[in-house]
Amino acid sequence: MASDRNGLSIELQDRIAAVAHELADAARVETLKLFRSPGLRPDNKAVSGFDPVTEADRASERAMRGILGEKRPEDAILGEEYGAQPGESGLTWVLDPIDGTRAFMSGAPSWGVLIGVTDARGPVYGIIDQPHLDERFEGGFGRAALIGRGQHQPLATRRGIGLAQATLMSTYPEVGTPSQHAAFRRVAERVQLVRYGLDCYAYALLAAGHVDLVIEAGLQSYDVAAPIAVIEAAGGIVTDWRGGPAHDGGTILAAGSPELHAEALALLGRD
Amino acid sequence: MASDRNGLSIELQDRIAAVAHELADAARVETLKLFRSPGLRPDNKAVSGFDPVTEADRASERAMRGILGEKRPEDAILGEEYGAQPGESGLTWVLDPIDGTRAFMSGAPSWGVLIGVTDARGPVYGIIDQPHLDERFEGGFGRAALIGRGQHQPLATRRGIGLAQATLMSTYPEVGTPSQHAAFRRVAERVQLVRYGLDCYAYALLAAGHVDLVIEAGLQSYDVAAPIAVIEAAGGIVTDWRGGPAHDGGTILAAGSPELHAEALALLGRD
Repeated sequence: MASDRNGLSIELQDRIAAVAHELADAARVETLKLFRSPGLRPDNKAVSGFDPVTEADRASERAMRGILGEKRPEDAILGEEYGAQPGESGLTWVLDPIDGTRAFMSGAPSWGVLIGVTDARGPVYGIIDQPHLDERFEGGFGRAALIGRGQHQPLATRRGIGLAQATLMSTYPEVGTPSQHAAFRRVAERVQLVRYGLDCYAYALLAAGHVDLVIEAGLQSYDVAAPIAVIEAAGGIVTDWRGGPAHDGGTILAAGSPELHAEALALLGRD
Repeated sequence: MASDRNGLSIELQDRIAAVAHELADAARVETLKLFRSPGLRPDNKAVSGFDPVTEADRASERAMRGILGEKRPEDAILGEEYGAQPGESGLTWVLDPIDGTRAFMSGAPSWGVLIGVTDARGPVYGIIDQPHLDERFEGGFGRAALIGRGQHQPLATRRGIGLAQATLMSTYPEVGTPSQHAAFRRVAERVQLVRYGLDCYAYALLAAGHVDLVIEAGLQSYDVAAPIAVIEAAGGIVTDWRGGPAHDGGTILAAGSPELHAEALALLGRD
């Protein structure tokens, strides 16, 4: 049976991708129920108690775990809200039911649902889904596509951009520890444009070729598994700030091309 | 004939609003032609020369000016790209064909088309339009609505939020001059959440009750005329950092309630 370098048959890859889309569909329903809803607005009588954002996070992850329990009981799961569940297939579903909870709370459509599939070596498939925009970025198993808004477009990172022409994104201007922040600034001071505040949507824009670099620190594996799969499928490079694997979290350097990655890495690692 | 405090008849208000929507529709066509288009991607052979972002800006403003020349020749125009044109009606159309050009270049849907109508005292009507999201925020002439995505929802700012529970937005973390930055930080350090990078969409989120404060500096009149009209129509307060009128540009403090505005103003003006 035909198989890819990841050792999974094409048929199994297609089955897994189909399940991933089911998860994303279910998470859309749960997250959009609460996005911008009056229930998200604290008033001066009830500041504490019910936390609707956590409720949206949890409902989204529960819906995804329910589908996996039925369709992929042999796989492991690692989710932000409900932790790790072992499996025996060698595959792990890495779930962030709402990446960018602060954007979600603010009504800004830069949050997303992250669904990654990893094997022993790292991410092999991922989805970054933005429900309010109806934009789903898929990468891995030979696919690299933006699906939604009635379209299915190939994803490809932007090439031939040097550091001086690059657009850099990072969620927070206060990146990491003081020494990490200094390293980030070394890159930020050399690019054409720095933009903040987009959470996982920044990785999606990189995969789609609209921006060139995303540099962040202090991340968890569920923040990065799906973005790594999507960006690599689109032709980009993702490592930590030392050039090693990034899928366990920590620092991340995502670039649209190997040349740009090397330029940024040389500045980040210079201490 | 019935008229509002601005001295315009209800019939004239309706006519002006209808023309404003025509402008926004025309600007959508022009901006969406180039948003995320391959023409926006510089390659290593053609970094200089044709500037598609400026072209999108100009085409959008030309389309709007064409409609005004036909439908409202008696009104003055002030546009970012083509400057001032005098009129004799006492009304001025204040146009920013793409607010947030850097977001536009980055593929991020936080840019917008700003259409304001001002009389001698300031903004009386405005539209903040986000074409990619199909979200149009309208305020003034007795209207305060989010129109789009098949819906027509009333806009209302969030009330009863003190500084310690507030969400603050600003496009750039480097706000204004060093002393302006220090003033901004006095507020930023006291709120619950600070988010960056959303351009005019931050004002729209404030009008819709999802965030509580927007504080910026170094603005032009075309950046603020439409947002002021929309936010005030939704129940919010907009002034400069001294509590005076903000519609000529400079510093801006937009708040969801008078109480929150007073809290932030006391901190901004403390020097």
